[in-house]
Order: sequence, then C-alpha cells, then structure tokens
Amino acid sequence: MKISEKYNQVRQATIDFCSHLEIEDYSIQVVQFASPAKWHLAHTTWFFETFILKNYVKEYTEYNSNFNFLFNSYYNNAGDRILQANRGNMSRPSIDKIFEYRAYVDANMQELLNGDSVKKIIDLVTLGLNHEQQHQELLITDVKYMLGHNPIFPEFNSGFNLVKDNNSSNEIVKIKGGTYKIGYQGKDFCYDNELGVHQVYAADFEINNHLVTNGEYIDFIESEAYTDFNLWLDEGWSWVKANNINSPMYWHKIKGKWHYYTLSGLLKVDENAILSHINYFEANAYAEWKGMRLPTEFEWEIAAQKLDWGKRWEWTNSAYLPYPNFTKENGALGEYNGKFMSSKMVLRGASVATSKNHSRPTYRNFFNPVERWQYTGIRLAK
Amino acid sequence: MKISEKYNQVRQATIDFCSHLEIEDYSIQVVQFASPAKWHLAHTTWFFETFILKNYVKEYTEYNSNFNFLFNSYYNNAGDRILQANRGNMSRPSIDKIFEYRAYVDANMQELLNGDSVKKIIDLVTLGLNHEQQHQELLITDVKYMLGHNPIFPEFNSGFNLVKDNNSSNEIVKIKGGTYKIGYQGKDFCYDNELGVHQVYAADFEINNHLVTNGEYIDFIESEAYTDFNLWLDEGWSWVKANNINSPMYWHKIKGKWHYYTLSGLLKVDENAILSHINYFEANAYAEWKGMRLPTEFEWEIAAQKLDWGKRWEWTNSAYLPYPNFTKENGALGEYNGKFMSSKMVLRGASVATSKNHSRPTYRNFFNPVERWQYTGIRLAK
Amino acid sequence: MKISEKYNQVRQATIDFCSHLEIEDYSIQVVQFASPAKWHLAHTTWFFETFILKNYVKEYTEYNSNFNFLFNSYYNNAGDRILQANRGNMSRPSIDKIFEYRAYVDANMQELLNGDSVKKIIDLVTLGLNHEQQHQELLITDVKYMLGHNPIFPEFNSGFNLVKDNNSSNEIVKIKGGTYKIGYQGKDFCYDNELGVHQVYAADFEINNHLVTNGEYIDFIESEAYTDFNLWLDEGWSWVKANNINSPMYWHKIKGKWHYYTLSGLLKVDENAILSHINYFEANAYAEWKGMRLPTEFEWEIAAQKLDWGKRWEWTNSAYLPYPNFTKENGALGEYNGKFMSSKMVLRGASVATSKNHSRPTYRNFFNPVERWQYTGIRLAK
Amino acid sequence: MKISEKYNQVRQATIDFCSHLEIEDYSIQVVQFASPAKWHLAHTTWFFETFILKNYVKEYTEYNSNFNFLFNSYYNNAGDRILQANRGNMSRPSIDKIFEYRAYVDANMQELLNGDSVKKIIDLVTLGLNHEQQHQELLITDVKYMLGHNPIFPEFNSGFNLVKDNNSSNEIVKIKGGTYKIGYQGKDFCYDNELGVHQVYAADFEINNHLVTNGEYIDFIESEAYTDFNLWLDEGWSWVKANNINSPMYWHKIKGKWHYYTLSGLLKVDENAILSHINYFEANAYAEWKGMRLPTEFEWEIAAQKLDWGKRWEWTNSAYLPYPNFTKENGALGEYNGKFMSSKMVLRGASVATSKNHSRPTYRNFFNPVERWQYTGIRLAK
Repeated sequence: MKISEKYNQVRQATIDFCSHLEIEDYSIQVVQFASPAKWHLAHTTWFFETFILKNYVKEYTEYNSNFNFLFNSYYNNAGDRILQANRGNMSRPSIDKIFEYRAYVDANMQELLNGDSVKKIIDLVTLGLNHEQQHQELLITDVKYMLGHNPIFPEFNSGFNLVKDNNSSNEIVKIKGGTYKIGYQGKDFCYDNELGVHQVYAADFEINNHLVTNGEYIDFIESEAYTDFNLWLDEGWSWVKANNINSPMYWHKIKGKWHYYTLSGLLKVDENAILSHINYFEANAYAEWKGMRLPTEFEWEIAAQKLDWGKRWEWTNSAYLPYPNFTKENGALGEYNGKFMSSKMVLRGASVATSKNHSRPTYRNFFNPVERWQYTGIRLAK
Repeated sequence: MKISEKYNQVRQATIDFCSHLEIEDYSIQVVQFASPAKWHLAHTTWFFETFILKNYVKEYTEYNSNFNFLFNSYYNNAGDRILQANRGNMSRPSIDKIFEYRAYVDANMQELLNGDSVKKIIDLVTLGLNHEQQHQELLITDVKYMLGHNPIFPEFNSGFNLVKDNNSSNEIVKIKGGTYKIGYQGKDFCYDNELGVHQVYAADFEINNHLVTNGEYIDFIESEAYTDFNLWLDEGWSWVKANNINSPMYWHKIKGKWHYYTLSGLLKVDENAILSHINYFEANAYAEWKGMRLPTEFEWEIAAQKLDWGKRWEWTNSAYLPYPNFTKENGALGEYNGKFMSSKMVLRGASVATSKNHSRPTYRNFFNPVERWQYTGIRLAK
Repeated sequence: MKISEKYNQVRQATIDFCSHLEIEDYSIQVVQFASPAKWHLAHTTWFFETFILKNYVKEYTEYNSNFNFLFNSYYNNAGDRILQANRGNMSRPSIDKIFEYRAYVDANMQELLNGDSVKKIIDLVTLGLNHEQQHQELLITDVKYMLGHNPIFPEFNSGFNLVKDNNSSNEIVKIKGGTYKIGYQGKDFCYDNELGVHQVYAADFEINNHLVTNGEYIDFIESEAYTDFNLWLDEGWSWVKANNINSPMYWHKIKGKWHYYTLSGLLKVDENAILSHINYFEANAYAEWKGMRLPTEFEWEIAAQKLDWGKRWEWTNSAYLPYPNFTKENGALGEYNGKFMSSKMVLRGASVATSKNHSRPTYRNFFNPVERWQYTGIRLAK
Repeated sequence: MKISEKYNQVRQATIDFCSHLEIEDYSIQVVQFASPAKWHLAHTTWFFETFILKNYVKEYTEYNSNFNFLFNSYYNNAGDRILQANRGNMSRPSIDKIFEYRAYVDANMQELLNGDSVKKIIDLVTLGLNHEQQHQELLITDVKYMLGHNPIFPEFNSGFNLVKDNNSSNEIVKIKGGTYKIGYQGKDFCYDNELGVHQVYAADFEINNHLVTNGEYIDFIESEAYTDFNLWLDEGWSWVKANNINSPMYWHKIKGKWHYYTLSGLLKVDENAILSHINYFEANAYAEWKGMRLPTEFEWEIAAQKLDWGKRWEWTNSAYLPYPNFTKENGALGEYNGKFMSSKMVLRGASVATSKNHSRPTYRNFFNPVERWQYTGIRLAK
C-alpha cells in the first residue's frame, strides 16, 4: 500500500471511533493519565505537523502557534507545554477547530506524500502512524475510563463491548532451555526499544496457552485473596489497603452478583470471558495464589509462536529496561521510549483495543505496575 | 408581578447567559470551587424539583432518579451526592438532556403556580428563585475562571467585559457614633442570616464613597507591597509566598504592561476602572499600606444609604457569624446558610455579575478569605 | 517585686516543670503545632537575647550565632528561621547546651536589670516574661501531646494530672442589655490586642456559671451527636468525617468505659470533672444540641466578674479580629499578635496549665477552630 | 567461631557505634525511611526475641508486651505495628530501658546458645546476626541523615569520616561473552534472594575497575548536566526539577567551593575520593553523559573477582526481581526479601558503612531508584 493511502487509512480510523462520541465527551479528563479525546485528536496531528511538515515543507504555515504549547505531550526538546493534569481544563479550542486542524494537516501531508517522498520522510510518517495507532488504543481506554467512572454508567456503543469470550485451549506449552535470540529481526517498522538483537539464556519452562478467565479470578476473590497479605508484594498490599480494592477495575457487586462496566454499559460478568483490567500486583498475587509465576518477557517472546495471543496486554515479570546496545535518536524523537525505562513493567501481546497491524511478538509495551485501565490480563508460567 | 411570571423571568435569565457558550464549555471543572455550567443549570432545577414538586405535587414523577445524586450540592438532609470536586468528570447527561430536565420541571412548576398557590409554596419558589440568582452569578464567575485559565484566553462575548470604569466621587462619608439597628426590617424576601434585627454600637467613623481603582492598586504593587511581610496577615503572607502572587487574579504583565483577562478576552488594564478579583488578604494589606482599614459589616450597613455601592462585593473586616437570635429552619433548607458560619469573611454590596433585584443593604455575602474569583473590591474606612 | 526578682521567678518556673522530663523527652516534635520542650526553652531565651541584650547591652557577645536561625519562631523582622515543622529534627544542640544558653542569658539579664533600668527595658522584660509564661503553658500542652500520642501512654508525673474535678454552682447569670466598655483599662501589663477600649452594645443575655462536665458531654456522645450532621458546622462535619472523630482528644473507650490520657497516665474519665480538649466545632455542636449557644467574647467580658472562671480556655462565638483603633508596634514586636487576626476564634478565661498571674478578664486567647490540644472547655449562653 | 561468640561480637558492634551518640540523638526521625537509633537497637533485639526466644525457650517471659507493637518493622505475620513514619514520635521507652531490653534478650540468648543448639536455631541466629549487621549499616546512614540535615552540621566523631580517598587503578576489565552461572553456590549463610543458581547469557562487555570520583562528578555538574533533560530518565528529570537538585546529597557550595557533610562534620570535597550519595537517576545520567552505561547485576557478578569492590554500593542497571525458582519461607521470615521485589533497583558491592563479613559477590542489595542516603557509587560499563 502506498504511504499516502496508509496515512489516510490510519487517520480515518481515529475519526471512525469518534463517531459514537457526544461533543460533551471530547474534553473531559477525569484522571491525570487518561487524556481527553480532543487532546488525542490534536496531539497525533501535532506530531505530523511538528516532526514532518515544519521540517520538510518549505514555507509551511503552522495552523495555530498556540497548539505547540497545548498539544505537545512530553517532548522536552519540542518546548514548553501545559501540565498533563491540565489537559482537561480547556473547553476551547472547540471540537470543530480540532477537526479543522486535522483536515489542514492532512491536506498538507497528502501534498507532501504525493510528491517524491524520501526515505527519511516515509520513516517519519510510519512512526507517526504507529504513534497514532497507540493513541487510538488510549482513546478507547481513556473514553472507557471517563464513562466507566460516571455514576450513571453511560453506554458508548451497544455493539462494541470489547468483551472477549472465546478463550484458547487449556494446553500447556513446554519450552526447552537454551540460548535464544531476542529482539526484532524483521525489515518493517519496529520501535527503538525492540532493537539490539541479543541472546538470552532461558531454562526449561512451561507456559499456559490459556489466559486467566473472569470465573477463575472470581475464585481468587472468593478465597479472600484481597485480604491475605502473604500473596501480595509490599507495594501491592499498600495499594490494596489504601484504596480498599477488592476486585478488578470496573467491577461492581450488585445484589450479590459481579457486574462490570463495558463500553456497552454495565453487564453481568461473563465467567468464561478473559479477565481484564487488573494491575501487575493483582497479576502477581494471582500467580502466587496458584503456586505459579508470570513469564519473563523473554520467555514470552521465545514461546510466542506457539501461543494464542493478542486480545490482552499480558503482564510479564520483567522490568522495562534497555536491551544491550539500545540507542536512541537525538532530539525529540529520542524521547519516544528510552526515557521511560524506570519503574515500569513490560507487557507483551496486544489487546482488543489495539489497532490492527499494530502488534508483533517483539513489541514491548510498558506501564506502571499500579495501572489497570488498559485491557490487561494474566498468563501463567512455571 | 405574579409569581409564575417571576419564575419565568428568572429561569430565562439563566438560559440567556448560556447562549454565548459552546457545548464544550458546559461540562468542565477546572477547580473544586468553580462548578461546570451544566451543573449549575441542573442543580437549580433540582432545587425546585426536590423542595417543591416532590413535596407539593401529588403523584409527581421525578425526571430521573439519578439526578438527586448528581445534582444535590451540599444538603446532607437530601441524601448522598457526588463529591464537589467530581462535578466536572461527567460528560453525560448531555446538555440536551439538561435542557429537557429544565423544561420538564418548568412545565410542572407552571402548572403548580397557576393553581391556587398557598403562601408556603410561594415562599419556597421565592427562595428557589433567589437561589437561582445566586447561581447565575456563580455561572458567570465560574465560566470566567475556566476561560481565564485557558492558555489561549478565549473570548466569551465581545460585548460583555464587565469592566466598570465609572467610579464614584472621592467624597468621604462621616458617620456619627451611636447605637444602630442592624438586619433586615422589610417585608420582602431576605435570607435567614439577615434576620434577628439587633442593635450595635459604632464609634464615629469615616468611610470612602470611592472604591479602590486599578491605578491605585498598581501603585501598591509597584511599591513592592507583595514582598513586604509587614503589610500582610500571617495567613496572607503564607499564601503570597506559596503561590508566588504578585497581582490580582487574571492579571498578566505582558511586555511591561498590565493586562487582565475579561469575558471579552485579554485587555489592557484600565487604570480608572474599579479594582476587582482580590482576596481578603490583599484587601487588608492594601488598607494597611494606606494607613486605613476595612469597614466592619455593621459600619457598612449603617453608612450604606450614603454610599454608591453595587458593582463590587466589598470585603469587610467582619467574620461571618450568626446574628443574635439567629434561627434556621429544620431539615435541608436549614443548611442553606447557617452551617457555613466559620472561617469566612462577610462581603457587602453587590457585583457587576449579581442578578438584578438581588441586592439590598442588609445582604450578607461570605467567602473564604483566600478566594478571589468573585468580582471583589476594596472600600476603605478609618 | 523588683523586676530582677520577677525575672528569676518566671524563668525558674520553666525549669521546674522540666524536672520531670527525661532527656529523650526534650527534642521530639510529633506534630507541627506542638514544639519540642528544648525549643521552648531556647526560644524564650532567644527572645530576651534578641530584643533586649542585643539592643541594650553595649558590646554584648551573642551566645551562638546559629541560634537566631534555630530559635526564632515567626518574627519575619528578625530574619530567616527553620520551618516550624522541622523544630523536632534537631538532636543538637544538646539539652546541656540549651541550659548553658539559658544561664548565659540570665546572667547577662541580671547584670542589666541590676543597673538603672529605664522604662523601655522594664517594659520589654515584662513582655518577655509574659511571653515566657505563654510558652510555659505550651510546654505543658506540647509535652502532653507527645506523651499522649505515644502508644504506651507514659506517665509524666503522678501528682500532676491537671484534672479539675470541682465544678462551680449551677447558677445562671443574667445580664441586662446595654452599652458596655470593652478592653483593658488598667495600668499593668496587657497585650496590644486588648487595648483600644471601646463600647459595644449587648442585648439581655443569660450565661451559665457552670462549665460543661465530662458526664454531660458523654450524654452528648451517647446521643450519637458525632453522626448527626445537623448539629455541626460544615467545616466541623468535614473534620469529623475525615478523621473519624467520636470523642474529645485523649479519650479512649476501653472495654466499654471511657478513659483519657492525663499527665499522670491513662485514667478513667471523671464524670464530674470539667470537660477539656474539645475544639470550636465540638463546642458549637454541643451548644446546638442543648438548644443554646456560645457567648460572644464581649458577653463573656461583661459577665466575667459574676462568673467563676479560670481553669479552662472557653471557646467564644467571636472571631479574633482587631479592636477599633488597634495599633501595633513597628518591627518584630508588632508581629506578636496582630498578624494572626484571621481564621481564628477567641477563647476567654485561663486554663489549669496557665501560669500564675497570667490571666485577666480582658485577655484574648485565640486558636484555629480545629485545634483541641489546649485545655479548652464549654460555657453556654442564650 | 562458636555461635555464642559470634552473637556477642555482632551485638557488641552495634553498641560500640552508639558510644559516640548523645542521648538526644537516639530518638529523632527526620524522614520516614531513616529510623531513630533507638528503634534500630530495639528492633534488632525484637527480632531475636520474636523469632527465637518466643519459639524455642520454654516458658520464656517476654520483656514487655508493648514492644511487639513498637518494634516490629514490616512483618505482617508478626501482627500490628506503629506506622514507619511514627517511629520518631516516641520519647519513651527511654534509652536506658532499651539497653535493659538488649541485656535481657542477650542473657536469654546466651543461655539458649550455651545449650545444645539444634541446626534450626543456629540458622535463625545466623539470620538474626545478618539482620543486625544490615541495621548496623542503616544506623550509620540514618544517624548521618539526621545530623547532616541539622543546620549546624554537628560532628559525630572526628576520626570517622568514612571518606574513601584511595581509588583503584584505571584498568578496564574485559569479559568474554557466554553463559555464566549466577547465584550463591557456597555453603555459608546467604539470603533467599541469592539462591536459585541459574545461567544467564552475557555478550562481550567491558567494565571499569575504577569507581567514579568526586572530581569526575564535579565535571559532570559543571557541564550543567543537572539542567540538560536529554541526560535524564523521565522520572529522574521530574525529581531534579521538583526538588531543585544540583549535586549529590550532603553537598553544599560555600563561597564557590564544594563541601560535603561527613560524620566528621562539614569538609571540603576531596576530588580524588570516590563519589557517594547519588541515586540511580544520577548514576544513569552520569553514564549517559559519558557515553557509557551501568553494568547489569549479572555482568557485575561475572566480573566481580577481577574488580576491586567493596566501599560503595554500586547501582546496576537491573531491577530487583526474583531469580528463577526463587522460593520463600512460610510466615514472617518469608517477608524478609521477596515482598520488596517491585520498583527497586539492585546494588552490588558493599559500602564503607557495611559491617565486616557482611559482603559477597552474590549479595543483592536493593533500594528505590530515588534514594541516595546510602553510600552509593557509580561503576561504568559498555
């Protein structure tokens, strides 16, 4: 596919999701880590404007000089910006203006891409589209966070509940110990944090093909696991106590039955569906309770081709750290991944909210161990 | 005027102000004390539904059973409610639904008022309309807070800047000492906190007819008053240092000139206009700097008929405490005023944002001494 | 008594109290508002050194140049100082050094006072001794706070429980309305905040001779008053809920019986003894529950000569604000009282911990309405 | 050496260090993570009482039933305890009582150890002594923290500055890639987190024998590294900005020269001495600035026998996570290490404050990446 077509396709997917939003839904930020839809729409556009149009289009006229300040996320090299926690304080620019901004940048991008685009530009556009796909996933999870924390539990779209109820076989995959190659070896796009192919030694291990279901997790809850400190990491136990946690995010016990908020509203928990919205501490406690453990990110990558994966981000027992020989670009784009390599855990796989063509066995996703607003799940190993 | 006409008039004034809002402007809450426009629209409606329709209309069908939880402000007697700080987290119900709610309640109210309304109902409607007028003022100041804290300083309405540039004569009013009667003695509506007519003794005093102007306050700023701890109350000085305060709210020094955000956007400060948006600590420090003091609320009331007043809420040097013989109603309506009688200072007068027919010499407004998002000003005495 | 004798007497009283302390008790600060004993010992000494010796003794050699920084409390005019919350972080200077410091300053003071002291010096010494007496009371209440928050409830002194168990008669004092003079009119020492004699008008009122007892307060507790929001000011109710308050400070229910920590350790609550350690919100809620109210500070002063008073600081319903014509000294000593005139309530009387000769009917004590570590009590009026 | 002699030796070393403390130094806690000396003395004693005497001595009489609550650190299985942040609020029990407690437990322990001690007891005593040694190091660093944050910078001991000024040769150690065995393989004591011997693959790498000196770090500071966001991890940069960090902990620039607080007081920074008191973020930024990186904990262990090590805890680029096949004991002792395996980084080596015989190449120390009150240093690799 031509890069200009790909560009259209990815950019359109962002808009398609938004067709179910009310205007009131675009601007609100309930919590620091979940940005308003409006902000995602503008920030992904800013990315193309800042890193491509301003650098590669002669005499490009920026759409609005305030937008660099408003829609830069975390690129120190790209100048000052509003605090992340304040993204939801801005009723203006209105949605109309944001769609105008997208149209303006898209028109300029198409003009550029219909010329003789050099490899450097194509690489940057590819990065920009992958960036947009990451924000498509955040758009879903951030909208879910906002609606799911509204006391009236509004339905986003009755046909889009993102509950995955067909699980994989109960097979256990056995892997022979030895030295394996880790990291992206293909020729297509990947992030800098997947590069630096290197060897790791893994001992024999077993890994479940099956992801933990809601029903299995209810057994864990009913065993009073949320009050048994011996199952928990110290940080996790502090989190449980400080927040009175007794179930995954979005779960509510109503008249003795577990329900959960989905993008189709409040539903009864489907016991056969794959568990979601648990954090690393919960995943780790569950594994402890089962007498098993989480796989490392290397075990996961080694076993990946023998596993069904791809509807949950799976917590691994690996911290997010640089591969040997990790290098990053100079300037703003070097801030994309590398600077977050502390205090985060790696997740492998992909979720029901992940954009199409945005997953691969070497992909390293990462979040703070306490977070659970992504579609996260548990795969056990030993 | 008939009560049903008054009802229509006051309710319509709320809607009129909103005609200048974009849909995006209705739902955002930037700070705990400034509620979203949507919330004001619904809460004032909830007041009529809860305290009148549910009690006085047989078989009244409530509009939506969730709304009591969503739109109760602080009435413990009226049940649970969302936290004040979370009023801005709700994109839904949408604006359309809120206007439907207003229409539904208004229709029911008109039906009730066109019957043979007993005095009790008329009294409650009168209270509800005064309540709505108070929220009309908050609607203005809360929208201003939201837009004025947006880094792009959006214009709300080019013809509505609420800058009052004609000040009064420089006359000094002299009042003879003696015993005076304080409190509301008329027969129309007043709040419970104005009742309990009682005598106070005041010594001879002088009070300025003139309110402090922006230009006069610039002299105070330029004397480096914001760095001279001897002018400030201890709490005020802590506030200045902790927040690096150096000017009134909404003021910005741009290329050496003072500007302020108004509902018509960012303007140059008009030195002849009356100062606004200062808190009690700033008012008190200014008076100290002038070798004068703020009037007490009693002095203000005694002198009121000889003063031009009514475009600023004027900080007095009186704490908000009950008058002798203050009594409050039982139940929710008893929570209206009385429970706030600690840690607040009294303001007298009325502001450019106060609704018509919503001011009188005995009116006791009150805010925390640190707040300055209302149209507050300074009158000096000695 | 000669001023040099008075000096010795007051300074010695501070030391006498300390004879019951262990060395470990001198340095700890459990909460920002309760300073370590060591700090009180040094700060009161610093007061004499800074405001008298450095100004009136030629070629006076300061004891230690660091002490100005360490032991200044809140006098901005006297230079930088450590944060109040950090007073307990300093194990050094050791207690020995602090007693050396006291001895050094005392010797210098005696030399000065044995010369021909001018009135200005005598006035400053008198202020310094009153200041020391205020810190003697804080020394008691701060030590009690530290020991009373130690889970093993150490006994300070078995003969010093400061429980006042003889209460006054149940008489009700009736005062005729009229104009009364308020403020200190004598010729001895008083604080600047008592000056500015002025008239106030008071209507007829009744005031109880009797202070509320522990037994009466237990009735209030057992009526479930701590869960009835209608009794509480809004701020008070927030405080009750946020801190799960259900009784006065230092009270513990052990096997169904109320106990309280005293300086003689944990004792059963004496139901006939006068209630202590409640804050303004509790005092106000109690009055509300009784259908009465707290007196204003003016009513208290008017009635004082007809009342038994002097073993509790009694919450009044008056905010701490300047009297008409209040003036303060220039420089540091002007910071003594005036700058605290916001967000505080006035207490009248004196407590069991108040130093001898440190009370009078015009004395205006003041604390934040939330505080209750002083020996505070309730007198009702109507 | 007999276990009873070892016991005496280690226990005595704790007391020896304390001989330089004033009584006032024992009880103060300046910051949550640095406990009072008194608490260390009691807690290490509580460990022997709780895990040995109460379980293995028939009819053992506990010294004081309150001490379990006061001196349990973090063992949930051993019952409730005071909050870590409140350890410094207790002036009592006095130091005398704590030394009595130590003597009482020591006498009981000696009696037990002079009998026919079974292996289980010897293992527990060995764990208890290693535990005491860890607290000996904390005792030093926590006392340093308290005195070093006292504005008068008291000297602890003029002969004990713990500045290490002889550094190692500048040699670069080259290690051949391959599969190596990791983990403790000896027969003496080690912690559970060192067990589970396993293989790791390491590529060729180089590691400096030399630790970074103060002088080298001054070059980093003077290159304005503390203002160059490109050198820092995102979390590190937030920490630098929020706290205005511009140098290691304890460093102060006085009249243009760098000084640092040591246990012998404030000294000029010795440029040849080994750098200390930097956190992971600073170590990582320094490596980035040098175009190198920190070693992993595995590289460190592989290279250890060719390196001079042992006077600094060296930050590695490895997160603290369980080794494959990590298992922990049931009950309280299982909480010793395992539950802390999140959000921490591994340090290898040993510091000038580490007790004798308390280091080995497989030892895994761990701290939050932000901490820097330990004697931490930097070794570079590539």
